[in-house]
Amino acid sequence: MSVTVVGSIAFDAVQTPHGGRERMLGGAAVHFALAAAFFDEVRVVGPVGDDFGDDEYAVLRGRGVNTDDIEHVEGGKTFFWSGVYHENMNSRDTLETDLNVFETFEPKLSQASRDADVVFLANILPELQLNVRRQCERAKFVALDSMDLWINIAHEALVAAISAVDCVILNDSEVELFTGEREVVAGARKIMQHGPRAMVVKLGRYGAALVTPDDSFWVPAYPVDFVADPTGAGDSFAGGFVGCVAAHGGDASIDVLKLAMAYGTAIASFNVEEFGTERVARLTGPEIVERVEELQRMASFDAPGVALKG
Amino acid sequence: MSVTVVGSIAFDAVQTPHGGRERMLGGAAVHFALAAAFFDEVRVVGPVGDDFGDDEYAVLRGRGVNTDDIEHVEGGKTFFWSGVYHENMNSRDTLETDLNVFETFEPKLSQASRDADVVFLANILPELQLNVRRQCERAKFVALDSMDLWINIAHEALVAAISAVDCVILNDSEVELFTGEREVVAGARKIMQHGPRAMVVKLGRYGAALVTPDDSFWVPAYPVDFVADPTGAGDSFAGGFVGCVAAHGGDASIDVLKLAMAYGTAIASFNVEEFGTERVARLTGPEIVERVEELQRMASFDAPGVALKG
Repeated sequence: MSVTVVGSIAFDAVQTPHGGRERMLGGAAVHFALAAAFFDEVRVVGPVGDDFGDDEYAVLRGRGVNTDDIEHVEGGKTFFWSGVYHENMNSRDTLETDLNVFETFEPKLSQASRDADVVFLANILPELQLNVRRQCERAKFVALDSMDLWINIAHEALVAAISAVDCVILNDSEVELFTGEREVVAGARKIMQHGPRAMVVKLGRYGAALVTPDDSFWVPAYPVDFVADPTGAGDSFAGGFVGCVAAHGGDASIDVLKLAMAYGTAIASFNVEEFGTERVARLTGPEIVERVEELQRMASFDAPGVALKG
Repeated sequence: MSVTVVGSIAFDAVQTPHGGRERMLGGAAVHFALAAAFFDEVRVVGPVGDDFGDDEYAVLRGRGVNTDDIEHVEGGKTFFWSGVYHENMNSRDTLETDLNVFETFEPKLSQASRDADVVFLANILPELQLNVRRQCERAKFVALDSMDLWINIAHEALVAAISAVDCVILNDSEVELFTGEREVVAGARKIMQHGPRAMVVKLGRYGAALVTPDDSFWVPAYPVDFVADPTGAGDSFAGGFVGCVAAHGGDASIDVLKLAMAYGTAIASFNVEEFGTERVARLTGPEIVERVEELQRMASFDAPGVALKG
């Protein structure tokens, strides 16, 4: 099995109430890949500029990520984003977005990337997502992330992309923006009418919900002691989630998807404890498993054995 | 075993996007008692006026609730509340609050009520909660609800009441108001520093969290198809939660509290499907158990069995 992710590779500058970084490795495809690499071979498709060097490749390769399809644009600069998180970490202001080489990005997949069994379409133009989806004919499981911008200005293209994937991953405010529906399960099912058989709704500090045509499943957020930097948490989640499906041969049965929710949650909880990729880059498998087991304890209870009146 | 609840008995008028009622049976003690009565004998302590008649007593007695300690104030009128829920059901405006006989309420507990093994102090003046707590010397488990008003204007008295109980039940905005802490577990632990060994944080459509000194546990909201009227949902939750502890002899072990969270969630989910007490008044034990088992499925997953790299 192998996993292909198409998305941004970036340098980020962030300030949070607990400190900041002037320039750190980031981007959706990077955070996804570092998480998914615990489960399977991961190939990253995305553009970088001349400023993307050995140190950055080393982080990805140190985790066994295949970087052959990272496109180096001669004379270009890597996507740069800077932002400030507010006190409660639930909102942030973007200070600067320099798309740079990402502005004219057209995904070029090698045959190996096209042959992936599992594909993650990170948050990019919906037209590009659909284009990539169509190139990956053999994929058994394709998941897609998006954002408020595309919901607002590229709604039809986004619907077309959504209709071609198996699973959509959005946060609750994006689901509400997309559907006008505040209830998580009802909103998810509206989006699933376009085709996907599963949807993940990320709920921030309230965890995440998985919705299928017949079921819903909820995993709490792992209660970390300290949030240093939320950047990339959603993509780390997606990496753990999609990676777990890949580790099960692309089988998206409800039992696999439930376990995938826990892996995604666990890895995302490590991501936020330090800046950028710092924590996940030195994360170990046993640490992940420990939190998955803790999540299991946090949400399971013994069968009802009470004799009720009435 | 027996359960004593002290709190409001009311007539409510509500308007929601799905309809309304001009006058319906309500009040925290009523919603609590109808839920807790599935588990144990429940005695209600609270005042009513001349307008509280056979129909209202019949609803309580129909569920086996002991009404001997309901205080009929001659010439008085029963507490009346009216409000309007907005489109998303998460916020409401109070139109009218007529405390009536509730304004001068001083709880008078019979010996039988004082002898309860389990006590719920519904949302009333913190001084009265502490007074009742002290009268119930034999209680093995005492839980307390409160509201933003008392957190704001009677903070010290509320701390005194909290320090005398085993479990505090608040919603997340109340916890934040009380502690200045947005994180659920951290906020709950701050409140628990005053003495309680457990705390329930209600999260509305995101479910509820149980926090103990060593653990946290999360139960999702049961995904109902239709919310007619949220009035009383929190007290129905408390009734199921506290009732389940009573059914276990007042044992507040983590396993019992987890199961209690599920019972509370299940009964509250029925409460909101119709107006006031309408649904819970004809609810059956098997219906509750069905939703508890569904909650179990919604939150449990098989142990991790993935070989991780790294």
